[in-house]
Amino acid sequence: MKKIYEYKDALEKLIDKGQEIKILTLISKLYPDDIAELLENIEEEKKSKLFRILDVETASDVIMELNDLSRELLVEDMSSEELYEIVEDMPSDDAADFIGELSEKQAKEILSHIDREKSEDVQKLLEYPEDSAGGIMQTELISVEQHSTVAEAIDLIRSISDDVEDFHNVFATDEDKKLVGVLPLRKLILSKAETKISSIMEKSVIYATADMDQEEVANTVKKYNLIALPVVDGDMHLLGRIMVDDVIDVIQEEDSEDIFRMAGISEEEDVVYSGSTYKVCMTRLPWLVFILFGTLLSGYFLWVYESTLKELLALVTFVPVICAMSGNVGVQSSSIVVRGLATGKIDFLNLRKMVLKELVVGIVIGLICAFIGTFIGMVWHGNMVLGISIFLAMFITITFAAFTGVLIPIFFKKMRIDPAVASGALVTTSNDLIAINIYFLLASVLMKTIV
Amino acid sequence: MKKIYEYKDALEKLIDKGQEIKILTLISKLYPDDIAELLENIEEEKKSKLFRILDVETASDVIMELNDLSRELLVEDMSSEELYEIVEDMPSDDAADFIGELSEKQAKEILSHIDREKSEDVQKLLEYPEDSAGGIMQTELISVEQHSTVAEAIDLIRSISDDVEDFHNVFATDEDKKLVGVLPLRKLILSKAETKISSIMEKSVIYATADMDQEEVANTVKKYNLIALPVVDGDMHLLGRIMVDDVIDVIQEEDSEDIFRMAGISEEEDVVYSGSTYKVCMTRLPWLVFILFGTLLSGYFLWVYESTLKELLALVTFVPVICAMSGNVGVQSSSIVVRGLATGKIDFLNLRKMVLKELVVGIVIGLICAFIGTFIGMVWHGNMVLGISIFLAMFITITFAAFTGVLIPIFFKKMRIDPAVASGALVTTSNDLIAINIYFLLASVLMKTIV
Repeated sequence: MKKIYEYKDALEKLIDKGQEIKILTLISKLYPDDIAELLENIEEEKKSKLFRILDVETASDVIMELNDLSRELLVEDMSSEELYEIVEDMPSDDAADFIGELSEKQAKEILSHIDREKSEDVQKLLEYPEDSAGGIMQTELISVEQHSTVAEAIDLIRSISDDVEDFHNVFATDEDKKLVGVLPLRKLILSKAETKISSIMEKSVIYATADMDQEEVANTVKKYNLIALPVVDGDMHLLGRIMVDDVIDVIQEEDSEDIFRMAGISEEEDVVYSGSTYKVCMTRLPWLVFILFGTLLSGYFLWVYESTLKELLALVTFVPVICAMSGNVGVQSSSIVVRGLATGKIDFLNLRKMVLKELVVGIVIGLICAFIGTFIGMVWHGNMVLGISIFLAMFITITFAAFTGVLIPIFFKKMRIDPAVASGALVTTSNDLIAINIYFLLASVLMKTIV
Repeated sequence: MKKIYEYKDALEKLIDKGQEIKILTLISKLYPDDIAELLENIEEEKKSKLFRILDVETASDVIMELNDLSRELLVEDMSSEELYEIVEDMPSDDAADFIGELSEKQAKEILSHIDREKSEDVQKLLEYPEDSAGGIMQTELISVEQHSTVAEAIDLIRSISDDVEDFHNVFATDEDKKLVGVLPLRKLILSKAETKISSIMEKSVIYATADMDQEEVANTVKKYNLIALPVVDGDMHLLGRIMVDDVIDVIQEEDSEDIFRMAGISEEEDVVYSGSTYKVCMTRLPWLVFILFGTLLSGYFLWVYESTLKELLALVTFVPVICAMSGNVGVQSSSIVVRGLATGKIDFLNLRKMVLKELVVGIVIGLICAFIGTFIGMVWHGNMVLGISIFLAMFITITFAAFTGVLIPIFFKKMRIDPAVASGALVTTSNDLIAINIYFLLASVLMKTIV
């Protein structure tokens, strides 16, 4: 199989020349996820051109695989009719996710123009919290009455298979439409035409209620090795189903969220990787400012003990600050890069862009933290030399920490060592060392030259 | 659905009384994963008793869901005949994993006694690296010649479905047994009996080669939303398939590994959660000792600058050491607890046991690191008071850090706040603060009383 990034240059050239047929031939060999990856990485003005060439079915698959930023760009350029067509072709869960991101006005407009049944389904789905079973389920599924025969079930499947894209199970319900069983398609194939569904179905069905948290949904699917999990209301009425591939997305999302939170980054995967520099800084600064004040307090106690021990210098009160700040910025940067490399959010196609962005974020964060630290240092100790030392030391060490946090994991990846090893302890400790040296070196040089 | 831990007490009583039929009635309502969870958490001498009651099919499913420690315990108690029966009933990938963990002698014995075809399959699988596509695939699959008809394919499925436990796809091959297509079972159901497979199959198949890394396998399945990924050799001959549920296990394993590595824990999930205290300490100490020496170097530089600045105390040289050590131990403990809560490795059933174990690990690690730190401090500065301060401060702060690292995430979980927030920055910063205070407080008290 050819790697996706090998298609990029050829594709960009074809778009430039407007050779639609050649583009379609090239694209026809690719899966929606590959097309989405290429779309995210080609030049901005070419995105719309490429997207317009796709047929509706491909377009509606591709658009849900894009990151938020690229999707927003494309939606801005689309006419209402194009939007209707694309939404009509989406499964209900994708349609709900897609519409949920639009403005209220746009959402209403789309909901009033698309097929009525789908519109009602989507509106119901939009009422569930995004991270609940209801929020991630789709309403399209195959369900049969438990007393029908295998032949009847197959006829039913034939009649509605156009509406249900992807299914590997049939759910069985009783007269009151309550979920009572499940059976995999292979059982239908292996059973005689006149067999009753109730006699071949699995009766102890694992299910989720619509309000179940998505993390619990993921754990259930993982634990019981399921392909699809039915979702019911409080009375066991079948509402929808959650497919295993959507569960994998949930697992990735939740794991990334945990990793980011552990590293003091308070946002979702999508913001971390495709948000603007401003947004990324905003996801990282709150914890850093918290740490800054926490370690200032540590420095304050060093200062308090000075009165007991009589031998400490104001300079030392900033040692915990400088160590902790560079350490934590390094951990943030490396967590983002390590996780990005693991999930494929950072790959050959966008490596350079991602690294550059991380470095800009590092400089911005370094400047902001250095200003806060210096301001407090000046007010507290009233010493100009100390202030300049703190500012320069914090700015240099934080920026440097962000750089090493980004570059060490990438270097490890290229050397075929797990980049995760590079994050955490290694980065933190080397940053501590470097930070203390830069700080005292600066201070002693400044003291000699100024004082 | 009843929670699993609600069955525990009832089950233990029934085992005590030896009421096999009642146990089987209770167990019959449960899935293999649930039985495994109960088995892991009942008293040791009851494990074997419960396991013996299970029929072979259930037993072979259950045993692969157990953690290494519980599995080893059960295997020790089993007769050779019991082992053969259980392995015979496993799919090839589970059988290979199971046999791979046994001693060479035991493995050979089993391989020579089980069904010959299975034995050959398993031996081939054992040759692939554990973390490659070949190492996680199973050889059981359904493949048909592309020129056969739907009716012929269904006949073939009927004839071999006993050997293949779980399938949702049929793979199509050419005359040379090379993989040329794939089709989901629903296409078989929806097509007429005389239709040729080649006319309804998906021709651009996504596949893995046997030597592909399992992380790449996981990313491929995730990206293309697959239910099963075929595995081929260099000539496109079909060797096996990897099911999506095995891929989910890989994702969880790889994510845990990344999280642990970031926190300076160099081992696999299974060791972290079910290894002995000794083993767990060994997974955490290498990085801690590395950090210890790294920060000692930081302290050394503080000391060197002392000669320039004339106002630093030997005491201060240990500030980076004490802050970094308590910070990192806290991050290790909290990462283990946060990840354990997220993946279900830590739950109601084993919470108390896990917490106790973590605390013991904390004390052991605290003692070892304190000894190393004190030894270096004494040799370096030759000061007894300093030595005692370092020892007490390191032991108390590291142990305390392990305690808070364990208890804060659990407290957050109970308060329904994401425990991941509690890890990292919060734990580190509060530990810094506490560590510096304990250290200087001890030092000043000791100096007043001893000197």
